[in-house]
Amino acid sequence: MNISVKELAEVVNGEIRGNADAMISHPAKIETAQKGAISFLANMKYEEYMYQSSASAILIRKDASLKEDVQPTLILVEEPYTAFVKVLQLFNETLFEQKGISELAYVHPEAKIGKNVTICPFVSIEKGATIGDNTYIMSNTSIGEFVQIGSDCHLYPNVTIYHQCVVGNGTIIHSGTVIGGDGFGFAPKQNGTYDKVPQVGNVEIGNEVEIGSNCSIDRATMGSTILKDGVKLDNLIQIAHNVVIEENTVIAAQAGISGSTKVGKQVIIGGQAGFVGHISIADGTKVNAQSGVSKSIEEPNQEISGTPAFNWRDELKSKLLFRKLPELEQRIRELEAQLKKQ
Amino acid sequence: MNISVKELAEVVNGEIRGNADAMISHPAKIETAQKGAISFLANMKYEEYMYQSSASAILIRKDASLKEDVQPTLILVEEPYTAFVKVLQLFNETLFEQKGISELAYVHPEAKIGKNVTICPFVSIEKGATIGDNTYIMSNTSIGEFVQIGSDCHLYPNVTIYHQCVVGNGTIIHSGTVIGGDGFGFAPKQNGTYDKVPQVGNVEIGNEVEIGSNCSIDRATMGSTILKDGVKLDNLIQIAHNVVIEENTVIAAQAGISGSTKVGKQVIIGGQAGFVGHISIADGTKVNAQSGVSKSIEEPNQEISGTPAFNWRDELKSKLLFRKLPELEQRIRELEAQLKKQ
Amino acid sequence: MNISVKELAEVVNGEIRGNADAMISHPAKIETAQKGAISFLANMKYEEYMYQSSASAILIRKDASLKEDVQPTLILVEEPYTAFVKVLQLFNETLFEQKGISELAYVHPEAKIGKNVTICPFVSIEKGATIGDNTYIMSNTSIGEFVQIGSDCHLYPNVTIYHQCVVGNGTIIHSGTVIGGDGFGFAPKQNGTYDKVPQVGNVEIGNEVEIGSNCSIDRATMGSTILKDGVKLDNLIQIAHNVVIEENTVIAAQAGISGSTKVGKQVIIGGQAGFVGHISIADGTKVNAQSGVSKSIEEPNQEISGTPAFNWRDELKSKLLFRKLPELEQRIRELEAQLKKQ
Repeated sequence: MNISVKELAEVVNGEIRGNADAMISHPAKIETAQKGAISFLANMKYEEYMYQSSASAILIRKDASLKEDVQPTLILVEEPYTAFVKVLQLFNETLFEQKGISELAYVHPEAKIGKNVTICPFVSIEKGATIGDNTYIMSNTSIGEFVQIGSDCHLYPNVTIYHQCVVGNGTIIHSGTVIGGDGFGFAPKQNGTYDKVPQVGNVEIGNEVEIGSNCSIDRATMGSTILKDGVKLDNLIQIAHNVVIEENTVIAAQAGISGSTKVGKQVIIGGQAGFVGHISIADGTKVNAQSGVSKSIEEPNQEISGTPAFNWRDELKSKLLFRKLPELEQRIRELEAQLKKQ
Repeated sequence: MNISVKELAEVVNGEIRGNADAMISHPAKIETAQKGAISFLANMKYEEYMYQSSASAILIRKDASLKEDVQPTLILVEEPYTAFVKVLQLFNETLFEQKGISELAYVHPEAKIGKNVTICPFVSIEKGATIGDNTYIMSNTSIGEFVQIGSDCHLYPNVTIYHQCVVGNGTIIHSGTVIGGDGFGFAPKQNGTYDKVPQVGNVEIGNEVEIGSNCSIDRATMGSTILKDGVKLDNLIQIAHNVVIEENTVIAAQAGISGSTKVGKQVIIGGQAGFVGHISIADGTKVNAQSGVSKSIEEPNQEISGTPAFNWRDELKSKLLFRKLPELEQRIRELEAQLKKQ
Repeated sequence: MNISVKELAEVVNGEIRGNADAMISHPAKIETAQKGAISFLANMKYEEYMYQSSASAILIRKDASLKEDVQPTLILVEEPYTAFVKVLQLFNETLFEQKGISELAYVHPEAKIGKNVTICPFVSIEKGATIGDNTYIMSNTSIGEFVQIGSDCHLYPNVTIYHQCVVGNGTIIHSGTVIGGDGFGFAPKQNGTYDKVPQVGNVEIGNEVEIGSNCSIDRATMGSTILKDGVKLDNLIQIAHNVVIEENTVIAAQAGISGSTKVGKQVIIGGQAGFVGHISIADGTKVNAQSGVSKSIEEPNQEISGTPAFNWRDELKSKLLFRKLPELEQRIRELEAQLKKQ
């Protein structure tokens, strides 16, 4: 996509200082921007970059006063970062050119497809599935029987959604993610083998949720595994059967939550953290990366760390002394020697 | 699916107390069951739920004596939970409606397909592959050259099985799982680059194995990576080349086992645990979540914890003292002060 | 594949001692080799295996002197392991029989496909994508808009490459891996919900890179997430947005690197290790398995361990004393008792 500075300035409601006819082909960071790029400067701390930049245009604050003249065309706006996000979205709109239902897709005659839905090649949509208006489903994604997907969703290639799962509106699911696989439930038998416990529940995902790539979100044994509105998941995350995650909770990559654990609202979970099953995590809890959470957190807005996880400040003190264990042992040895002498 | 209490009672060989004509549409947990649901009560500790439940039917023990009258129809059975599992299976049977070999699948003419096999759209089955009777292969799954899959298996969508791998009978593989990717083997060269070590072995998976979603099970460099009968894997698990896992071992999500490690029978491995390569784990070992196992475990039926993992009771004592390190350091400081005064 | 010892000896430029007409069907390890197998003996420490082996042929060093007569045919070579790798490659060449562009694939008319490219069934290649000569793309793989893939690459089934990403020459990508999913970026709003930060960068992967199965490599917010030439990734690895990994760095399974972190050349990262964002790791650093790296490593060629990671030798000392914490506490208690008595 190529667009003139003039056209871009209209999109962001900005004022031009410099060449309005300069052509822009892509957005870039100010440090690395080359000819054809548009960038932004939100913090005058980084003003120096302005004078070295080869960008063709830079968004800056209306009231910014520059020490020197600059080579790039300037677009003056109220909020440079907000304006830049609009530019980013504009460049993204030229993608995802496929529209409509591909003849190379498989859509069961009893599936219900909304208006303006896109279904790319090699997508399989099974009996009884429902797809809401404007939803975009990319190649090689599989939608199982009686799945319900809302409107304005975007499913990237190679997603799998098992039978009977439910996805809200405006939700994004990235490639390789599996929604509704069987929960991990086995009943041990006398002879050492296991009976599979049938997993007949489903997964219910709310509105405006985003799920990264290669996540595994298991269906409930009975009832539902639930991700409420606004939940954001990074990549390679494990959500076990019957887990409930409340609104606007954010989970970083490779974290795992065991069966039936309830995670509150606005919780922030660091990468590679793990949770045992059947516990509750209070609203606003912050769990640091690689923590192992073994007990319920009842007081909201705490920050925890370590395995097993406890108050992060206390854990930090212990961690610092862990490094000094050889020194502590030496001090004990000296005390023992001194006492022996007496 | 809708089925009457009368018909369900026949399936579980139960006796009806109440309305035999009530219609059941789904199973549910007793706490949340609504009209149309069948539930169960196995433990009289939860008897109170009976009196509040809106379930249409509840399975209870033949000899149970109830304190009050209840609204749901009762079905009296020997073992309520066992009966309930039968009900769950019955409801699951109505799923997976597709049958036969889809015209939208690719099956190489030299592949051998058994009786009553289902192959869904966009499945690719390559040269020399063998699929046993009654096996069910869902959409977008790829089966490589000379793969052998037994009878009565269920492969969910988007599974990949690389060339020459072998899967036994009655085995379930969930979506996104990759069987037989190359083992991670590179020979360093003088100039800092690496030569790839060809990975010409395969993966052999036994009977009645279940593998969760998004697992990676690498082929052996030579010989076979082996999962014996009855092994159960959760999601997002890494099994490296030449690993051997003996019968009925159970591994929780996000655990990883490095190359050539041998894991015994009936071992239970917690989530996010890791194992170095080339070690042996004795039968019946229990490895706690997030442990890092760095040495062979020779004595069977031990429970281990921590990184590096050791006896869990000892590790627990150390962990408790880890939390008290600031206090221990304070006690040392006081001892030092006292001795100085003398 | 079946090949005579005579033909194999020509491939490895070896001299035959024994039956040149023996037929070889597969390579195997000397300990487990059966009739039809070819194996090798590089280290005379394992000479005993020679006398027990049922292999049909064994590669040994030209100048090896054997204590006894052996049953297998011997092939005398300069370097038995190097010769064996040649044999392994030969057996692998008979695989991947599909050639050319399948009629069951979807290739956008504006995609540019090089010479001798293979595109298997149910591959989707979108508008503006470029595929270099001799590249092999297996079933159910999805290539997004404007993706550039070099020559001599091998993409296994069910790979996803998002729009605008770039892959060099001779690179191997295993199944389930997702290249270019959105970076995990959200701007918190007053009401507790989040605005998605558009991710308009891409991923750039160099030459001779290998990426295992089920990895997630996110696109940059702006600019590129970069994997330089010769980088080797195992399975289930998380690479966040704007990460840069320099030449010939090797990362074991289930490790995760957070956003904008720079990893130097020839770094070796153990399994399940984690890195915080926005740090730099010096060339030649060795990071042990399960470490949590929280700070930049400035001095090259260090080995680090633990969470937070520090010098591995010091960490080992602390770990050993961690196990002895109950004993240390006992010694403190005894000192306190002695002082009280005084």
